[in-house]
Amino acid sequence: MRNYNYLWYHKNRYFFKRTTHSISSAKKKSSMAFDIPKDNSRVSYVHDDLIADRVRKRKNIHFFEVRELPEGVKAHPNPISVAGGMPSHGFFPIESIDVNLDSEPFAFDGKDSFNIPDISKDDELIDLQNALQYADTTGFPALRKATKSFVSRVVKPKIEKWSTIITLGGADGISKVMDVLVNPGDSVLFEEFTFTPILNYCVERGGIPVPIKLSEVMKNKTLGNMEYADELEQMLSHWKERYSNLPLPKCLYTIPNGHNPLGVAQTFEQKKKIYALAEKYNFFIIEDEPYAYLNFSPVDEKPNFKLNNDEFISRLYPSYTTLDKSGRVCRLETFSKIFAPGTRLGYATGHPQFLEYMKTSANLYTRAPSGLSQAIVNDTIAHLGGTEGWIHWITLVRNHYLERKNALVKAIKESEAGKKGYLLPLDPSCGMFVACKVDFDISKEDQFTELMEKFLLNCQIAGVLPVLGINMAVDKVFSASRGNFIRIAISYPDEISVLEEAAKRLSIAAVQTFKNL
Amino acid sequence: MRNYNYLWYHKNRYFFKRTTHSISSAKKKSSMAFDIPKDNSRVSYVHDDLIADRVRKRKNIHFFEVRELPEGVKAHPNPISVAGGMPSHGFFPIESIDVNLDSEPFAFDGKDSFNIPDISKDDELIDLQNALQYADTTGFPALRKATKSFVSRVVKPKIEKWSTIITLGGADGISKVMDVLVNPGDSVLFEEFTFTPILNYCVERGGIPVPIKLSEVMKNKTLGNMEYADELEQMLSHWKERYSNLPLPKCLYTIPNGHNPLGVAQTFEQKKKIYALAEKYNFFIIEDEPYAYLNFSPVDEKPNFKLNNDEFISRLYPSYTTLDKSGRVCRLETFSKIFAPGTRLGYATGHPQFLEYMKTSANLYTRAPSGLSQAIVNDTIAHLGGTEGWIHWITLVRNHYLERKNALVKAIKESEAGKKGYLLPLDPSCGMFVACKVDFDISKEDQFTELMEKFLLNCQIAGVLPVLGINMAVDKVFSASRGNFIRIAISYPDEISVLEEAAKRLSIAAVQTFKNL
Repeated sequence: MRNYNYLWYHKNRYFFKRTTHSISSAKKKSSMAFDIPKDNSRVSYVHDDLIADRVRKRKNIHFFEVRELPEGVKAHPNPISVAGGMPSHGFFPIESIDVNLDSEPFAFDGKDSFNIPDISKDDELIDLQNALQYADTTGFPALRKATKSFVSRVVKPKIEKWSTIITLGGADGISKVMDVLVNPGDSVLFEEFTFTPILNYCVERGGIPVPIKLSEVMKNKTLGNMEYADELEQMLSHWKERYSNLPLPKCLYTIPNGHNPLGVAQTFEQKKKIYALAEKYNFFIIEDEPYAYLNFSPVDEKPNFKLNNDEFISRLYPSYTTLDKSGRVCRLETFSKIFAPGTRLGYATGHPQFLEYMKTSANLYTRAPSGLSQAIVNDTIAHLGGTEGWIHWITLVRNHYLERKNALVKAIKESEAGKKGYLLPLDPSCGMFVACKVDFDISKEDQFTELMEKFLLNCQIAGVLPVLGINMAVDKVFSASRGNFIRIAISYPDEISVLEEAAKRLSIAAVQTFKNL
Repeated sequence: MRNYNYLWYHKNRYFFKRTTHSISSAKKKSSMAFDIPKDNSRVSYVHDDLIADRVRKRKNIHFFEVRELPEGVKAHPNPISVAGGMPSHGFFPIESIDVNLDSEPFAFDGKDSFNIPDISKDDELIDLQNALQYADTTGFPALRKATKSFVSRVVKPKIEKWSTIITLGGADGISKVMDVLVNPGDSVLFEEFTFTPILNYCVERGGIPVPIKLSEVMKNKTLGNMEYADELEQMLSHWKERYSNLPLPKCLYTIPNGHNPLGVAQTFEQKKKIYALAEKYNFFIIEDEPYAYLNFSPVDEKPNFKLNNDEFISRLYPSYTTLDKSGRVCRLETFSKIFAPGTRLGYATGHPQFLEYMKTSANLYTRAPSGLSQAIVNDTIAHLGGTEGWIHWITLVRNHYLERKNALVKAIKESEAGKKGYLLPLDPSCGMFVACKVDFDISKEDQFTELMEKFLLNCQIAGVLPVLGINMAVDKVFSASRGNFIRIAISYPDEISVLEEAAKRLSIAAVQTFKNL
């Protein structure tokens, strides 16, 4: 039997705590369930000029209110709240949850279990009475703290005030940032090949995607860094001639590490140049980093299951948040790639006031992330040893991806099409995708789209389904002459031999395509 | 150790199944992860005139494509997909989850447990390799089937074609329906007192809330039915005189059972009249039913823990979906009130084509609900015995609410303020709220707002925090003379004695307020 106190207040009762806070601080109005934590709430934001009009005008209509009491009148010390429509946790059908962990990726004999109890007194954990209850739209304090600790250790933002909020996954974070920034008619910069579903979030708000040419990347026969700062500078300095009908860009969306679909990475030098442009031309940087920690650096490394956390961190390219001086960067991460997509959890790192604007999107469009997901992810990380244990898990995941990447790149290179130079894999520095050029003669560049269609048909016949690079172009016409590549995901098969078989089939398809040229 | 097949296809692999489907049916284009199930996809929708312009224009930009093969050419029978960025489930840190259930609400010695395994062959269950993976934005087939089965048994929609989709909770369902319907400048009808956070979703899309007066309800000294069909008919037939600057309404948002904040219910007769108005004036009905199953009918009933499922169902007021002929009703339910809010799950019932429009909102604004939440909720319901077991659980929850409601209403009536007629609880027919009138003399109706502020201050001093009714008005000025009530939630305390203490304190506050009149 559980032990029941006659409770008005209870340490673990989130809403009650907030009510108390509101009364004792004698604020005129306070919405109990929807406040951003106190320590973030009075930070001013210098980039209000970049926030969409409708977002700055938003008011949160709610009905929870407490009144300031007249001087000398004291509120009851133990008020009973009958305000919120939260069910008592006695109504919830679940008493506790046991989570049985794998000891490491692809090792399935783990006997490592932990329990998520109904009530826990440990503030680092999310217990079921919280997990199953209504909660803040920016995530539970425990998980926000865990992500903040991780970001402090691994990303190390330089800006004085920054925080994290929990999102419903990486794409949700991007959707919310687009919501906060984009006015109808705003220009939004994208790398010309990108994770195109993001375009939906931009277009829905009336934004106009403007692609940045990646000629330097596509010229390379092997791995290239993602260099486009000079191209971007040219675009911006000649903006009015080139884009006479568009305003200067509001923001840049970038996938700096393990670029999707190209697999390449921006060097820190490139980032410095691009950040300087952001300052000069006053645009915001959306740093999307789902793959940052699946880092293959150096690129010819063999998997090293003894890689220690410090060494792992030292090899990561520094984030835009380490350059940011004023809060014009929001970094988005996700638990999808290194924990699991079905958690639908991610987090955003940025200026606290920018995150408050994101919270207005959360209130309108998503509300809180799943409490069950938050409890399971948060408590798993805690059980693995908190930040350091979690980084260790990530290094293991990263090693498996490195093994896969090496095997696939090798198999393509050693295939008939690889040897004949038909298929040129761009050995990626990061991520779960290998871009592979289908190296048609450059004199045929006006036929690339048609040739790639033929190649895809041959892939279907050979029994392998990659993604056409051109399908991931912001503008298929603009990028047609650089669209002679496919994206190969290395993540899904259970066994590496499947990837090796895929490489063989790609080779068959390529040989067939080149034969009929 | 898990058993691994060399798999291209796997029964439980959702994405692979869909890829296969796309190839074999030789569709020109198919987005693998985002399709609505086939059986819903070719139903035309007669109410396209009610869909917001931006929603009808939406295109889903994605990059998954397969090509129709030339005649006589066969696709490979076992293609390897290297298209999607789904991690292999070998990367997920969780091997399995044990869920330990309570045997009934507030009975905490349940030893009833079940396991969610990594892989299950039972199509009624959601296993972890699915729960942790990317998935359809409208929910897993198993949970959609479970909700459809429940709705068939309990709600019984009459329209020929209808379906359900999973939402991220009741409010999310409403937000998506508003997204689908509301053009900037559209009029949206609300009951004058309502769950006001919903107004945010309307206003964000440029909708203009128009309140319907609830004079009949507020005149009652005890329980009233929520009757406003005549009032609404007056509004609509004199629309141009009364609302010269507004178009005829696009939709009506209603909470027909256990109205929030009033606790009252619409009779079936009322619904018939209102549905007829919807047909005549061509508006859509958003039926929000978070509380429908916390049904107290007859209102003076004692809790009956032997209530059988058939009897329980027979006492529910029929839904608008039982009147709907053409698909102009969307019914929204939630797992928050009868399972737990932290699941962030609900479901929408409506015309398949309307649900497809809602899916465009899901793709843009929420993406899929948490897979972990879906697995835990779905598999709990299955473990409780499917639809019938779940209805039985609901009857138990409902009995506990009935106990609470009876205790609170009795305590208020028997308090000093109750006996003196200062506090008049409206004995609710449903839900988790008791509205309680503070029965100031009607001659003071222009001072109600001020008097209620005084009453709230006295509540804070006495140590009880209700919600002011007027705070839940669509328009506080419009509703001021009917705002002399508070909303008391009966759900949160663990023990009924807390509610009885709350009633005492409300009485103290009321007596104090009337003393100083």
